[in-house]
Amino acid sequence: MRVGVLGTGVAGTTIATKLLALGHEVMLGSRTADNERAAAWVASAQEGAAQGTFTDAAAFGEVVFNCTSGTASLEALGAAREENLAGKVLVDVANPLDFSRGRPPRLSVCNDDSLGEQIQRTFPDAKVVKALNTVNAGVMVAPEKVAGEHDIFLCGNDQGAKAEVSELLQSFGWGPERIVDLGDITGARGQEMYLPLWLHLMSAVGGPNFNIKVVR
Amino acid sequence: MRVGVLGTGVAGTTIATKLLALGHEVMLGSRTADNERAAAWVASAQEGAAQGTFTDAAAFGEVVFNCTSGTASLEALGAAREENLAGKVLVDVANPLDFSRGRPPRLSVCNDDSLGEQIQRTFPDAKVVKALNTVNAGVMVAPEKVAGEHDIFLCGNDQGAKAEVSELLQSFGWGPERIVDLGDITGARGQEMYLPLWLHLMSAVGGPNFNIKVVR
Repeated sequence: MRVGVLGTGVAGTTIATKLLALGHEVMLGSRTADNERAAAWVASAQEGAAQGTFTDAAAFGEVVFNCTSGTASLEALGAAREENLAGKVLVDVANPLDFSRGRPPRLSVCNDDSLGEQIQRTFPDAKVVKALNTVNAGVMVAPEKVAGEHDIFLCGNDQGAKAEVSELLQSFGWGPERIVDLGDITGARGQEMYLPLWLHLMSAVGGPNFNIKVVR
Repeated sequence: MRVGVLGTGVAGTTIATKLLALGHEVMLGSRTADNERAAAWVASAQEGAAQGTFTDAAAFGEVVFNCTSGTASLEALGAAREENLAGKVLVDVANPLDFSRGRPPRLSVCNDDSLGEQIQRTFPDAKVVKALNTVNAGVMVAPEKVAGEHDIFLCGNDQGAKAEVSELLQSFGWGPERIVDLGDITGARGQEMYLPLWLHLMSAVGGPNFNIKVVR
């Protein structure tokens, strides 16, 4: 499959590398076609890796991952262009963390709205699925980094899109019974507002390689 | 021990009943001394149960539980009076859920503040410990209602107060290794902002008897 990954940070390059390893063709998208971090990733990556603008990567992908920083996501997706997202599964991995007032970061949107919902409203023809934002990048593509059973969440308005993302998550190593569907895209409020707890847990646990399991 | 429990809702009466069963003397506090729900609780409860105003219950307790609804907590604690809270452990169980605009509820405070912090700022001489707000009332006092290992969070500025609350939680059935200390009272942001995820999980799981386990 051809996948466009928007964003050259740790989440973007980690997911892009995993997708390549799984045999997909991946274009890493950024603001400019000659982005240095994207070039470094392409140079060190295996065959099937390419780089381009947000527009290039979104046009390239049959599926598109939003791994840009949350406060810049709407702008990046605007640069990717609506017509390049229409009809496609758009996996929103971003967290709307605003560090402009220091640490701990604020959420730039929360409570009765979320970044996932903003993206779905702005790009109504994209099939937005919020997923993977509740764990560290390393854990996203290698859940075995955390011992034992632990869960990953997704939500979105399109059942078929969620099923497709669920298959991708399973290819990343998430067991089907460890993928928790939170319903429509408003579930993104839960997934994003969990972040302050995640940040406090990271301090309590002493590092980012942890996750939570829903116990019944 | 003498415990004042503020609030006659499910959380308040459930905690009060458990405390009685553990041999504590409990006064259930409400806006008026003759509150009907408090009277019904006293009538059905075992020896050691009493009712009174918020002021009465706070004055009575060596430890005080805030189980009022989150949007009314500051007013209720004001009625309880600062001098009746000073120097005492104040366990804040409340969630600032605002249902005035319908469901799902909004948080009346979140992001760069929390109810736990508001209470600590308003009553600087109380030793506020945020705890138990992340599970259903039944699970608070009977963690065995959820199968397997799962965790409860607490936070607060006073180490001694957290140790005291930890002992109370252990008497409720929480193993010491299942009690996760999130640090100072700003951890309340994490504990309270988890609520939207809890609400979505309740739908996904099909009921309120669940919890999360932190997996490393």
